[in-house]
Amino acid sequence: MVLSIWRRHDNSKDPPPNLVTSNQKDVSPEQVQDICASVGWSKRDPLLIAQALNNSLAVVSIWDKGTMVAFARATGDKVFNATIWDVVVRPSHQRCGIGQLVMRELLNELDEYDIPLITLYADPGTDGFYRRFGFCADPSGVRGMFREKM
Amino acid sequence: MVLSIWRRHDNSKDPPPNLVTSNQKDVSPEQVQDICASVGWSKRDPLLIAQALNNSLAVVSIWDKGTMVAFARATGDKVFNATIWDVVVRPSHQRCGIGQLVMRELLNELDEYDIPLITLYADPGTDGFYRRFGFCADPSGVRGMFREKM
Repeated sequence: MVLSIWRRHDNSKDPPPNLVTSNQKDVSPEQVQDICASVGWSKRDPLLIAQALNNSLAVVSIWDKGTMVAFARATGDKVFNATIWDVVVRPSHQRCGIGQLVMRELLNELDEYDIPLITLYADPGTDGFYRRFGFCADPSGVRGMFREKM
Repeated sequence: MVLSIWRRHDNSKDPPPNLVTSNQKDVSPEQVQDICASVGWSKRDPLLIAQALNNSLAVVSIWDKGTMVAFARATGDKVFNATIWDVVVRPSHQRCGIGQLVMRELLNELDEYDIPLITLYADPGTDGFYRRFGFCADPSGVRGMFREKM
């Protein structure tokens, strides 16, 4: 399993040694805010981040010497479905397999609940990444829809 | 607001009088199983249904003389996002505005949390229904993806 996580691609680099993986919900909300900002996502209030993490079904983070370098979480009902949110890898640590690692760790967490349906919303150009984990887009014509509050 | 819920369409009928709306999570799982089966969805274990309802963020049901005639629920983190699942109207009670009623009640419940992003997965042909409530499909190319356990 580790071999598949760390499989190199043509233009990839080796991951840093001694990465630490956490499945704790009470990770630093400031670190979550910072890693999300590192990829250009809007900044969220750390107090709200802490609440959202606590109310999530699973939270996974990857750490390199005290810095969060990858993050992902999921919400859900623990029984029939889960939805993955906020899959992010710090730009300095991209293209060395850490995205696969954080996804695999999150799916392992969710598999403990034996949930039959796991969903996510893939940004443009990222669907190939998620297909590696068995996700498919719009099966049977089902469409993801969104309602954003202004 | 009530007027808009009950707005008649060309081929609609009047809703039954004295419908009762509930936002309780501890509704009968057998009634949930039954209404889902009434539209051809696979039967789920009532014990699992009860767990899923309890772990949902919001649950809304509409009742006509002791029979559940519409149902919808949502999961989420109470802060940043919610996902709507299992929107269903019993066939005997379709085309009289009850689908709009159950959706509006569920959105009202979710609005109490002031959640900025509400999502759902629309079956083919149902996206027009959800657009009435401000939902749009695949904004900015974001795609819904699914991983089903065999």
